Amino acid sequence: MIVGTQLVERLAELAKLGAYDQGIDRGLFTATEHEARRRFAGWARAAGFDLEQDRAGNLFARRRGSGEGRAPIVVGSHLDTVRTGGAYDGAYGVVGAMCALERLNAGGTQTEHPVEAVAWAGEEGSRFPMGCLGSGAYAGLNSIEAIEALVGDDGVRFVAARDGAGGLLPDVRVREGFPRPAACLELHIEQGPIMERAGVRLGVVSAIAGQVRVEVEVLGESGHAGTVPMIARHDALAAAAEIALALETLARQLGECVLTVGHLVVEPNQTNVIPARVVFRVDARSVDDERVDRLEAGVRDECARMEIQRGVKCAIKPLERRQAIPMDGGLRAAIQETLGGLRAAQMEISSGAGHDTMCVATIAPAAMIFVPSAGGRSHVGSEYTAPEDLELGVEALARSIVAVDRLLSKK
Amino acid sequence: MIVGTQLVERLAELAKLGAYDQGIDRGLFTATEHEARRRFAGWARAAGFDLEQDRAGNLFARRRGSGEGRAPIVVGSHLDTVRTGGAYDGAYGVVGAMCALERLNAGGTQTEHPVEAVAWAGEEGSRFPMGCLGSGAYAGLNSIEAIEALVGDDGVRFVAARDGAGGLLPDVRVREGFPRPAACLELHIEQGPIMERAGVRLGVVSAIAGQVRVEVEVLGESGHAGTVPMIARHDALAAAAEIALALETLARQLGECVLTVGHLVVEPNQTNVIPARVVFRVDARSVDDERVDRLEAGVRDECARMEIQRGVKCAIKPLERRQAIPMDGGLRAAIQETLGGLRAAQMEISSGAGHDTMCVATIAPAAMIFVPSAGGRSHVGSEYTAPEDLELGVEALARSIVAVDRLLSKK
Repeated sequence: MIVGTQLVERLAELAKLGAYDQGIDRGLFTATEHEARRRFAGWARAAGFDLEQDRAGNLFARRRGSGEGRAPIVVGSHLDTVRTGGAYDGAYGVVGAMCALERLNAGGTQTEHPVEAVAWAGEEGSRFPMGCLGSGAYAGLNSIEAIEALVGDDGVRFVAARDGAGGLLPDVRVREGFPRPAACLELHIEQGPIMERAGVRLGVVSAIAGQVRVEVEVLGESGHAGTVPMIARHDALAAAAEIALALETLARQLGECVLTVGHLVVEPNQTNVIPARVVFRVDARSVDDERVDRLEAGVRDECARMEIQRGVKCAIKPLERRQAIPMDGGLRAAIQETLGGLRAAQMEISSGAGHDTMCVATIAPAAMIFVPSAGGRSHVGSEYTAPEDLELGVEALARSIVAVDRLLSKK
Repeated sequence: MIVGTQLVERLAELAKLGAYDQGIDRGLFTATEHEARRRFAGWARAAGFDLEQDRAGNLFARRRGSGEGRAPIVVGSHLDTVRTGGAYDGAYGVVGAMCALERLNAGGTQTEHPVEAVAWAGEEGSRFPMGCLGSGAYAGLNSIEAIEALVGDDGVRFVAARDGAGGLLPDVRVREGFPRPAACLELHIEQGPIMERAGVRLGVVSAIAGQVRVEVEVLGESGHAGTVPMIARHDALAAAAEIALALETLARQLGECVLTVGHLVVEPNQTNVIPARVVFRVDARSVDDERVDRLEAGVRDECARMEIQRGVKCAIKPLERRQAIPMDGGLRAAIQETLGGLRAAQMEISSGAGHDTMCVATIAPAAMIFVPSAGGRSHVGSEYTAPEDLELGVEALARSIVAVDRLLSKK
């Protein structure tokens, strides 16, 4: 099975680009990320696809459709990684899209719509301070001018990086603007443990969770750990701990949501000094925006409670907020139907992580397919999905492209 | 009132040595700490006291007694500070001892025992990794050989620092060994809010608290903050927060003790990653060793509970342990009686902080006198005690020296 071998081999090939002892570090427009796009272009040329790129750094490999002037179905993910990334997050969706198009070639399948395998630029926001950078530009959520003004964490401006050695591919035409697609599909690893635990190999995404991120600063009162009685204390860490645990309880009670305090810093952080100041960040997500609202209200409530009960001061700073993005009902139904022919268990699943498709979904019908993640691990070097699940995902994606093409052609 | 002016002026003089924007940083055998000892020697010479120093860096100013071959009553504190120290912790007890001896001179008071004002070396452990360095050597708790082998946080060996420019005073005789005293007294700021809140200006210390310090490592399971359901998590920070709050509750329930989690570090400490590992330190103190034992057992119990309830792993590393040191009953009674003549409210108070006297108390009867700390503040640049309280403390110390001399002379 040639396509299958290519899939695993190509992922292994990409996994070497940016690899170090902690995983893979492949930021947008670095030498290794450029090389990943160069490989993608090579596979596309070999398969006879037309290449184009845009000024945000998105790279498209187009398989022509039979319909006159149809907008393309865009199918892809991203080639950049977080600082300690794995081999599958993003790369699997890009290589999978390419393999799915090759599979259509091999089967002689003709679609009405052109289909573009796409490598969206800078999804992780690990070099330039904007997540879903390329897909956001493509969907018109951020202007190309705003993006070009971004400065990377290495001090390099986006425009300099894009026009430099690690930037756009020199031999690929640069597309004007950001033409609207007919639909958007994305294949991705789950990044969580739900499918593995359920023993299900294919997930059709119902929605991408909405999210709120806030930073809480708790100001308490410092003091000598040996001399200030317990009842006279205003311990910033104890207050922060109580807020974090109350929010965890609230999330558990609400259900269908997640809440995390992943970042917390104590000052002065000395064994013999009562904490004077704690800064922590809350990340809350749900496909139900009302639950996100309730969790955000919970942050305010718990901070207010601590101000009264512990005599601390709390300041809440909003960091990020996005609404839940439901996947298109028509596309989902068509995909679920066609996947029924694969004799593999499938399930509806929500995505707690953000993806490029959540941007493109604002301008076109969109859907996503998940395959399981071993141990639910992601954003770590040990990220893993079994080859047979990877294969199944590509087959599911190829079938879904055809199903979506047919659905949209009827209209 | 000459003595009073000297007291405040001398403290202001010392406060300039090592001052910077965050407070006072005056580590043992640095140029500024050397200069502080030089000033002390100057005052001693002007008052006609005999100077001696020992190989641990302790500096003694001896006022002769009338008794033949009596061991001295040692009265003092330390001249070094923490990295962000104030003007009173330590310095007040040294300057106060000197002023008290001058007051005995001024009043023509003859004591049976010689009385030595002493600047104990390196109480804070802020340069060399050993608290109560000089008083511990004096009491034989640590050998001078072990101390000489210490390396400072600047990479300088103790022996090199002591024998260098910032070390022993060049014109003062170096005493052989560490002769045993008849008794030990120390005047100190409270470093807590209890006396201020009680409106009491003099405290007679009942005991110096015992202490246990442990480091707890909580190993959880990392994961994507958006994709791992609440029920599938092993969040190291949530476990640590629950342990810290349970210990706080235990300390409040036990009473007469304090417990602090002042140091806590989260890994990987990223907003969108479930905490994999948290390391925190617990500092528990009480004048009742049994309460310290119960708090330490509480750490073990709560860690075990979290291992079961949250599926994390906890490792407890002992850092430090010391027994409570009661002050001498006879000395306390004599001091309380003589302070009764001062027409100022006095109280019994325990010391949550460690002091040089807790070392010397292991070889001789010992007692301490506290004055209030404004706002309970200590180990900060804003440490403050009102001049009239400082004065009162010195008068109390002078009277206590006389009372203790009489008490011991009866034996």
